[in-house]
Amino acid sequence: MNTTMRQDAQMIIDHAIASALPDQAVTKALHSLPPITGNIIIVALGKAAWQMSKAASDALKDRQYHGICITKYGHIQGEIKGFDLFEAGHPLVDENSITATKQAELLVSDLKEKDLVIVLISGGGSALFEDPLIPLPDLQDINRQLLACGADITEINTIRKRLSAVKGGRFAKQCAPAHVFAVILSDILNDPLDMIASGPCYPDSSTCLDALAVVEKYHLQISDTIMDLLHKETPKQCSNVETHVSGSVRQLCSSAVETAQSLGYQTMYLTSSLSIEARHAGSFLASIASDHQNENLAVICGGETVVHLKGNGKGGRNQELALSGAAGIAGCTSTCIFSIGSDGTDGPTDAAGGYVDQDTASILQKKGIRISEILENNDAYTALSQCDGLIITGPTGTNVNDLSVVLIRKDTV
Amino acid sequence: MNTTMRQDAQMIIDHAIASALPDQAVTKALHSLPPITGNIIIVALGKAAWQMSKAASDALKDRQYHGICITKYGHIQGEIKGFDLFEAGHPLVDENSITATKQAELLVSDLKEKDLVIVLISGGGSALFEDPLIPLPDLQDINRQLLACGADITEINTIRKRLSAVKGGRFAKQCAPAHVFAVILSDILNDPLDMIASGPCYPDSSTCLDALAVVEKYHLQISDTIMDLLHKETPKQCSNVETHVSGSVRQLCSSAVETAQSLGYQTMYLTSSLSIEARHAGSFLASIASDHQNENLAVICGGETVVHLKGNGKGGRNQELALSGAAGIAGCTSTCIFSIGSDGTDGPTDAAGGYVDQDTASILQKKGIRISEILENNDAYTALSQCDGLIITGPTGTNVNDLSVVLIRKDTV
Repeated sequence: MNTTMRQDAQMIIDHAIASALPDQAVTKALHSLPPITGNIIIVALGKAAWQMSKAASDALKDRQYHGICITKYGHIQGEIKGFDLFEAGHPLVDENSITATKQAELLVSDLKEKDLVIVLISGGGSALFEDPLIPLPDLQDINRQLLACGADITEINTIRKRLSAVKGGRFAKQCAPAHVFAVILSDILNDPLDMIASGPCYPDSSTCLDALAVVEKYHLQISDTIMDLLHKETPKQCSNVETHVSGSVRQLCSSAVETAQSLGYQTMYLTSSLSIEARHAGSFLASIASDHQNENLAVICGGETVVHLKGNGKGGRNQELALSGAAGIAGCTSTCIFSIGSDGTDGPTDAAGGYVDQDTASILQKKGIRISEILENNDAYTALSQCDGLIITGPTGTNVNDLSVVLIRKDTV
Repeated sequence: MNTTMRQDAQMIIDHAIASALPDQAVTKALHSLPPITGNIIIVALGKAAWQMSKAASDALKDRQYHGICITKYGHIQGEIKGFDLFEAGHPLVDENSITATKQAELLVSDLKEKDLVIVLISGGGSALFEDPLIPLPDLQDINRQLLACGADITEINTIRKRLSAVKGGRFAKQCAPAHVFAVILSDILNDPLDMIASGPCYPDSSTCLDALAVVEKYHLQISDTIMDLLHKETPKQCSNVETHVSGSVRQLCSSAVETAQSLGYQTMYLTSSLSIEARHAGSFLASIASDHQNENLAVICGGETVVHLKGNGKGGRNQELALSGAAGIAGCTSTCIFSIGSDGTDGPTDAAGGYVDQDTASILQKKGIRISEILENNDAYTALSQCDGLIITGPTGTNVNDLSVVLIRKDTV
């Protein structure tokens, strides 16, 4: 091996992110477009909507279509032929979300069976693509309650869907009788298609009973109008929809496996649904590393770990995961652990994640930095910045969860 | 595969425990005894001392020797030829520990260079083998302080060694100039030989400075006499000692790998030093299982997970680990997770550990048992007893940490 481990890590990261970019996902999916005899409408929504729109525009070349792209403030990078571009609120719905969504609804009204609606869906769509059945202030209030009470994303979406004209399969119903070709860039573990962007084109698996259970569990304060809406069932089938999932965390992992193999590592692929606490994941990965010394091995997993904030330091789950592994690999030879968020942003920092190797713990110790204290204060960024342990990619344009890797090299003395 | 998964699990457990039994460890190690021209003294100490003494007696057949066996109350299972048998206090030293230890010291005093001392060491030896340099009540007091303040076993032993005539390599010094042949049954992860039974025959890696740091860290209340002893350094080399480590958690894991392979599973060996929280380990293993469906795969790890008691239920770390994995494998086909303590005792229960499969979560749900509530109350035993999920082995006679396994079978529809 002529590269350093850090170089290997960077190559694995670069290739994995490239493989999960929205444009790649769209280009690949549009290869299987059905034959089209009618009009083409494109609706792109989510944080990656601009990239997905651009890729669709390129893929469709000289075909006629009318597109609408709804993304987060600051995410539009230029005009796209045939597209109306909108920026709107995220993570909270605002008036612009609603205005843009109503435009999309107008575009797909009165379509014929031979027409085609291409819907390009990415994370963030829940807030960006919304036509609420209640006044916006009421919706904002319930959203705030849901975020504050600790409800998980499944519970949040179960409520949101019922308060919306477009979520939970309802947008696909509006498109009927036209055929809907949905391309989904997945940012939720295990790809629950009715949850990503609140599933505008996917039959809803949650029921009214589920929604009422969430209200009860978190003691949500809701009006009679909302209570009525929670009793109205969402579509349970969408026969006019064909769905393509692309660029999920599995893609990240399988790219990492391929790159590691090409670099000469044996690979151990663990999971793409890692969801335990970041520091425990880091310790677990370190304990695996310590039992596989003197191998050329890459241990690969993906998912989205959890951090329970206790301190007021600076960091993110990927930085905590990496730093948590540093002590466990301190006695190893040529071993590193790194973890990144595929969107290039880990927590409220400018880093995508963290990198540690067998020397990190002693480097930090010599600087008087105690890893256990840093972790208590959720301050991984500060520690990693002292040992060249930050991985900086800038915003990547994709958002398909995290990639965590251990690399172990045979001692080459 | 003609066996059920539960049968496979039981076979893996039985073989792993058998491979780590003290008698096997001793028999194997004594094969490499050096030629002996002088007297043979055997000193066995720890919770497995009786089994190790018995195996040594059998292995030495008609050789002359004088043995002494010091074990925990209730652990002597009969007379052994040539051995004086003692039962004593554990986990707290008592007068019997000291009386027995003084006998052992007497046996090894005035030995010649050609004599041989076989020392058979197992877990629990720290309390059972002790000749304190301070009055017993003072020692008991400092031991209670150490257990109560949350000091880890390394920190506890760093103090204990300096207050003892036999710990931290000092017993080996007493045996000199005779040769010492030490057989260690390891119950501490990564086999730190100076820590097991406080390392009576192994040079001490901890220093006086380390000991003083522990005093400061936990604000221990100590007398001037103790302070003086903490300033006296322990042996840093033991040139008359030959050490054999046997029957460690690695042995458990490698036996499990072999058995699983013989049953037709591919194997993924993760680590023998798992040490994160039990519930996170269970979730991690479940997430691995969900990404390896439709394989015949055994995922194997060993170590000792941690439980932070919050509730007042009944359970142990292995039962919590297994139960924590149940929800994550609920959507799987033919998948189980099991975890056992190799001593046959998991927490204060009569079970060795727990077993769950893809049906466990729904069985419990139908009985109105919520896994999340059970885990909050540390009550895994109660839940597992409702779904045939307890693994009962009875006391096994060994104590080399835990074994945790995931089995996945191809769907055989």
